[in-house]
Amino acid sequence: MGKDVTVAVGLGERAYDILIGPGLIARAGAEISSRLPGIRTAIITDENVAPFHLEALKAGFEAAGIASSVVILPAGEKTKSFAALQEVVDAILAARLERGDAVIALGGGVIGDLAGFAAGIVRRGMSLIQMPTSLLAQVDSSVGGKTGINSARGKNLIGVFHQPKLVLADTAVLDTLPAREFRAGYAEIAKYGLIDQPDFFAWLEKNWQEVFSGGAARIEAIAQSCRAKADVVARDEFETSDRALLNLGHTFGHALEAAVAYDGARLVHGEGVAIGMALAHRFSVRMNLASPDDAERVEAHLKAVGLPWRMADIPGKLPDADALLAFITQDKKVSRGALTFILTQGVGQSFVARDVPPSQVLAFLKENHPG
Amino acid sequence: MGKDVTVAVGLGERAYDILIGPGLIARAGAEISSRLPGIRTAIITDENVAPFHLEALKAGFEAAGIASSVVILPAGEKTKSFAALQEVVDAILAARLERGDAVIALGGGVIGDLAGFAAGIVRRGMSLIQMPTSLLAQVDSSVGGKTGINSARGKNLIGVFHQPKLVLADTAVLDTLPAREFRAGYAEIAKYGLIDQPDFFAWLEKNWQEVFSGGAARIEAIAQSCRAKADVVARDEFETSDRALLNLGHTFGHALEAAVAYDGARLVHGEGVAIGMALAHRFSVRMNLASPDDAERVEAHLKAVGLPWRMADIPGKLPDADALLAFITQDKKVSRGALTFILTQGVGQSFVARDVPPSQVLAFLKENHPG
Ligand SMILES: NC(=O)c1ccc[n+]([C@@H]2O[C@H](COP(=O)([O-])OP(=O)(O)OC[C@H]3O[C@@H](n4cnc5c(N)ncnc54)[C@H](O)[C@@H]3O)[C@@H](O)[C@H]2O)c1
Ligand SMILES: NC(=O)c1ccc[n+]([C@@H]2O[C@H](COP(=O)([O-])OP(=O)(O)OC[C@H]3O[C@@H](n4cnc5c(N)ncnc54)[C@H](O)[C@@H]3O)[C@@H](O)[C@H]2O)c1
Ligand SMILES: [Zn+2]
Ligand SMILES: [Zn+2]
Repeated sequence: MGKDVTVAVGLGERAYDILIGPGLIARAGAEISSRLPGIRTAIITDENVAPFHLEALKAGFEAAGIASSVVILPAGEKTKSFAALQEVVDAILAARLERGDAVIALGGGVIGDLAGFAAGIVRRGMSLIQMPTSLLAQVDSSVGGKTGINSARGKNLIGVFHQPKLVLADTAVLDTLPAREFRAGYAEIAKYGLIDQPDFFAWLEKNWQEVFSGGAARIEAIAQSCRAKADVVARDEFETSDRALLNLGHTFGHALEAAVAYDGARLVHGEGVAIGMALAHRFSVRMNLASPDDAERVEAHLKAVGLPWRMADIPGKLPDADALLAFITQDKKVSRGALTFILTQGVGQSFVARDVPPSQVLAFLKENHPG
Repeated sequence: MGKDVTVAVGLGERAYDILIGPGLIARAGAEISSRLPGIRTAIITDENVAPFHLEALKAGFEAAGIASSVVILPAGEKTKSFAALQEVVDAILAARLERGDAVIALGGGVIGDLAGFAAGIVRRGMSLIQMPTSLLAQVDSSVGGKTGINSARGKNLIGVFHQPKLVLADTAVLDTLPAREFRAGYAEIAKYGLIDQPDFFAWLEKNWQEVFSGGAARIEAIAQSCRAKADVVARDEFETSDRALLNLGHTFGHALEAAVAYDGARLVHGEGVAIGMALAHRFSVRMNLASPDDAERVEAHLKAVGLPWRMADIPGKLPDADALLAFITQDKKVSRGALTFILTQGVGQSFVARDVPPSQVLAFLKENHPG
């Protein structure tokens, strides 16, 4: 029975709490029935998460008298599709849930994005409870209300903003998460430090081992990340301005993910972000914005935790620099010719640069390309 | 070149104008480029509307320098499906439209609901311009931001609230609308009078012929309907309370539509609403809420304009009263046993009744069933 940390997301009428602590899956029934009495639910989860964690959740629901039906989907990014969306929507309607009833997203970011989208469109918006089970989902995707699926024309192009009523992040379930997925999620934690919290980054440099092993530092790192994300989301719920800072490392990262055709065996999202953050710092040094010490410090930390930090760390051959630039210019964060990047003046001093010349990016990619 | 009437929808940050007048399709390019300069578009329409009105729209767009791509879908309710949604979404993405670009819904309520939903989910919300071409769409579905598609489990169960940036209602295009569809849309106009505008209903009783023939009274009737709907929507954008009044005639109407399995040859939506409104008044008389004179007045007007007004006017055999009640209790507007109906104390004096005993409804249906 851990003492949970609560982070409040200040969105006025749409405000909600994030509870963070061990054992929350088993306690979810009690938490939900005290906050949303009389609610009925549909639990959406995937084939990797269900065998480990579904029974505990259902047992707690039964004890609390919460009715639930369950949909178990294949794991992986392919599940963020129109076909899976329709399946989830049908299941929710088949269970005859009403607007005030809740969709429960039990899984990583894939399940959170998909089930969140379904909750956003059934009866034009039902209640949603995020129960993130991957580290990435706990520190990033479950907070902020972005939901959606992929299109053949690009990732995350279809969706809605739909805030949850509650986020329950059980920090103990991370023990069943594959180590590689844990590290990938950790990249997003480090990101919050690098954006605008140099002290948090320094704290991570000291305490990362306990974050990985699962002590109090893990809860604290997740809570601090949720606070950082909640803060940005409260300032810019619909992603029209400030929220762009959260894309630190993501412009390079997305290009690399696209370059390996989203082959998770070669590169998962958080790994792309890790390399992207290192490149963003190096690129900032090249643009005379940051000092080489900053870039080295970032690279050293990523290396220490076992994350890839340069393009050469990606197994297999990469497309050449011109092709990588083409992936960057196709990315959403391009507006009329000039490139938008999140650059930095040093650890914890990132900013949005809206006028980066593509020629500079290309030269930089050539210099850093593994060949 | 008619003088347009403008109705403002007061939704704060999401406020927009409805322009109503003849020839607006040809003038749309000019109206849009002056209000939303630099915008690119995808026009969504159907196979009945395109042959009559697409060329004029495109010519005006070209003259105004507005780029557009076009999707033409089969006409009819079946088009409000996941498959058609995916087709529209793909076409919008294929045209590489960005968040600020616009989806143009050129058609009746089916196209408006479908294209509006697509605009609501591509890139988590793009601009939307409603160009309603049916009378029902001009006075009802194009205003207020409800969008969506049907599920095998019920109509309009999947969708989002997504307000348009502009509504352009060309009153001249109604001349190509089949007469039966015009009458069906007229039922929704009469509805606004019956909800809370006795003077408007009296005005319709005098002027309906000019509304049908297309003079200034048509523009005025449409404008007054839009004002009425805009007013309700501004008070209750997300349909949590007042907006329920707009369902006058719809509880009985939906049950009848379901009872004929949505066979438009037997009953289209507006006809169901006409019968439903007459029944709501008769039922109110039976409940000692309204006087028989009120019910007779409503029936006489519906009869005068050529609308059906009693169950016996539906061709073919209807399910019995018990089956009709079952359709009503399946309807969305049921909450935990008691039935919610829009009832009335007389012409223009409707109210939400949340505690209608199903036994009374059943008895009433038996009395009025054609057998
Ligand atoms: N909505 C947002 O704001 C946002 C932000 C960032 C990322 N995302 C999205 O999130 C997705 C990535 O999230 P992810 O990394 O969690 O991916 P994921 O959901 O695919 O989870 C990663 C893998 O871990 C498994 N898993 C999850 N929890 C587990 C547990 N406790 N035990 C064992 N296995 C477990 C999953 O089955 C999967 O195989 C992407 O689709 C991305 O676009 C969304
Ligand atoms: N979103 C809302 O708030 C709301 C409100 C009411 C109704 N609706 C929806 O609207 C739909 C009904 O709308 P509708 O009655 O316009 O149906 P519709 O779109 O099917 O149009 C009726 C018929 O008229 C044709 N048509 C339309 N304009 C024409 C024109 N100018 N010339 C020739 N033919 C034309 C169409 O092709 C169709 O065959 C239903 O799906 C209903 O659920 C939505
Ligand atoms: Zn990320
Ligand atoms: Zn209607």
